[in-house]
Amino acid sequence: MANRSSWLGRWLLRSIGEERIGAAPIRIVVADQSYTPPNMTPQATLTIPDFGTLAALALDPEVAFGEAYADGRIQIDGDLVGLLEAVYGTSAAPGDRSWYARLASKWMTFWQSNTLSGSRHNIHRHYDLGNDFYKLWLDQNLLYTCAYFPTPEATLEEAQIAKMDYVCRKLRLQPGETVVEAGCGWGSLALHMARNYGVSVKAFNVSREQIAYARELARLERLDHQVEFIEDDYRNISGKFDVFVAVGMLEHVGLENYYELGRVIHRAIGNTGRGFLHSLGRSSPLPLNRWIRKRIFPGGFIPSLKQAMAVLEPFNFAVQDVENLRWHYAKTMEHWLERFERSRRQVETMYDSRFVRTWRLYLAGSLAAFRSGTLQLFQIVFTGPKCKPISWTRAPLYENAPNEADKPAWTTAMS
Amino acid sequence: MANRSSWLGRWLLRSIGEERIGAAPIRIVVADQSYTPPNMTPQATLTIPDFGTLAALALDPEVAFGEAYADGRIQIDGDLVGLLEAVYGTSAAPGDRSWYARLASKWMTFWQSNTLSGSRHNIHRHYDLGNDFYKLWLDQNLLYTCAYFPTPEATLEEAQIAKMDYVCRKLRLQPGETVVEAGCGWGSLALHMARNYGVSVKAFNVSREQIAYARELARLERLDHQVEFIEDDYRNISGKFDVFVAVGMLEHVGLENYYELGRVIHRAIGNTGRGFLHSLGRSSPLPLNRWIRKRIFPGGFIPSLKQAMAVLEPFNFAVQDVENLRWHYAKTMEHWLERFERSRRQVETMYDSRFVRTWRLYLAGSLAAFRSGTLQLFQIVFTGPKCKPISWTRAPLYENAPNEADKPAWTTAMS
Repeated sequence: MANRSSWLGRWLLRSIGEERIGAAPIRIVVADQSYTPPNMTPQATLTIPDFGTLAALALDPEVAFGEAYADGRIQIDGDLVGLLEAVYGTSAAPGDRSWYARLASKWMTFWQSNTLSGSRHNIHRHYDLGNDFYKLWLDQNLLYTCAYFPTPEATLEEAQIAKMDYVCRKLRLQPGETVVEAGCGWGSLALHMARNYGVSVKAFNVSREQIAYARELARLERLDHQVEFIEDDYRNISGKFDVFVAVGMLEHVGLENYYELGRVIHRAIGNTGRGFLHSLGRSSPLPLNRWIRKRIFPGGFIPSLKQAMAVLEPFNFAVQDVENLRWHYAKTMEHWLERFERSRRQVETMYDSRFVRTWRLYLAGSLAAFRSGTLQLFQIVFTGPKCKPISWTRAPLYENAPNEADKPAWTTAMS
Repeated sequence: MANRSSWLGRWLLRSIGEERIGAAPIRIVVADQSYTPPNMTPQATLTIPDFGTLAALALDPEVAFGEAYADGRIQIDGDLVGLLEAVYGTSAAPGDRSWYARLASKWMTFWQSNTLSGSRHNIHRHYDLGNDFYKLWLDQNLLYTCAYFPTPEATLEEAQIAKMDYVCRKLRLQPGETVVEAGCGWGSLALHMARNYGVSVKAFNVSREQIAYARELARLERLDHQVEFIEDDYRNISGKFDVFVAVGMLEHVGLENYYELGRVIHRAIGNTGRGFLHSLGRSSPLPLNRWIRKRIFPGGFIPSLKQAMAVLEPFNFAVQDVENLRWHYAKTMEHWLERFERSRRQVETMYDSRFVRTWRLYLAGSLAAFRSGTLQLFQIVFTGPKCKPISWTRAPLYENAPNEADKPAWTTAMS
């Protein structure tokens, strides 16, 4: 192919450069040729080994980039997060996606469909990779969702505990109340609610490893009379509760099941209950990157706020509070990525170097997406139509939280 | 018609009672007959003079009730607000509306259409009723939107000032910034922003009386170099600004113009600005009552959150914060209704007794709608995709607000 590089290669390189990299300050090198956007000092160099890989990137950049990076076929000199952020920040609008990308996305949604068995399979592929793997880079409570940093300087452990309290306080949990949690991860939030707020919790999850771990924690802490961990799908939730909670679960439901999720919530909390959805979000609709769905989150879908309302509005649930914690997720990702990099030799021993590169790209890409605004994080508090008001104002949420006041430097932490 | 009341009347009465009143504890009296829901002690009595009025109520309750009440043809013994609240709380779901109601609603949307001239006409009919009328029952700053009560015991004047500060603080206005306001009422918010936050404001409104009043205020306060009041439609906003604000304006835009409103906002603040929408809302889509559109707010439309997103998502604006102030609007309405009742003789002198009954029903009905949850109030903070973060947490919003802490009695105030 090298012989044909003279004209086809130049054309491909320029078309990739102009269409995919846009105005990002990145130099692309292929064999003996290179492309740099006009009038720019490149901040990173992307080295592509051959024109075959370049052609794959031109035809299906969403998947080909991830695959080539995971294979170790492309090289990045400079900051990976910065490079991805620059590309996210300057690439074409979602409406400009090719017919191929649209069709391939729909097809993937279909074959990774979140039926009862499909969901179990999809969740298994991600969350049952081994608890030991996640322990390497998550906080000590194994919370695998956006943390809440009272100040940007808080540690990840502090911020994850603050997040759990923030959820409980936004819901004004009262002793004796009943909570149902859909998608409970390793169980920390359910246990935190029971331990610190005196509620009893039924927590659902289809990940076998996570449920086993959570049950063991509950037994060790003698909270198993108060918290029941159930290895089952959210669609099989039964019983009546005061509160519904789902943190980092909506991303796995799929748009086609939002009405069904709303029905399940309504069956659980009726017209008088309160609910909480904490989810990745978009500022406008956009399918999840196909490489992420192929390698990381099969069946995943991230809604815009408008799309998320399809869970709530058919059942007349009233939104009380929405908070966008995008910058808190960026900060969380910084911690995760840093811990992951520190543990990369262990991860390589547990899996292989392709796995390390795959997960590095996923974490770095997510961080870049939060920084560039491609990803948001919404916390939504809602109530049934006959629910008593949760609070007269939001002020009590910020009382007795000494570290939150008199902050000087939040701006610099986000720049 | 009284002769035929024996069977037709009984049937009508029962059908009205069962379908419209539902399980609300209300007794209906028509001529010599009456209906009370089974096993209930009625808390109010609705006296309808004849079966003709009853038939009108059966055929088109939305409009006929308001017209009959305004004419003085129906009598209510007991609490008007309580009666309306009971009916709102128990009546049929929106989806069950008759074909006639749906068709009539669409037709009304069409002939009250918010074109440039249509909007001017619609706004004129409500806001140009005379400033002296509004001075009778609004607060001293003539704020005709939901107040923010730091505590339920705050006065209306305090709560309206607190609301203006709350808006400014949610937006983190900085001295020297530029603000464009769409639908500025009598100008108080624009003047407050300029006076207390050092910003310069261009404020648009198509109500001639309101703009004239606002200009006079600006001149008297010597703020006219900093605040420009422009008698024009939001669609004619031009120029670049740091911030867009619309408080109580979205209700007059009409769903069909949401994309256009988003385009206007995007033209004004670009990708780096911040924005604020404060609007009546629904927990699920529902057209505005036709009697309200006929007599009070021609061209009015109240969106669900999902519908409101049609302004923001096409332009990639990211929602940062949504707060539902439904109970604050109920409290605001209590103040307005009480002041209105105290001034009713003056209002009758200025207009007539039909006008008094029309406005009483509008205010009482709105209060009942907030209490029953038929109406919500959303404050939405949003930012352009390239906007710097507004604040690391929401905690600073609740600092230096001494009256907000240590509140005992907010629950009772809302029961």
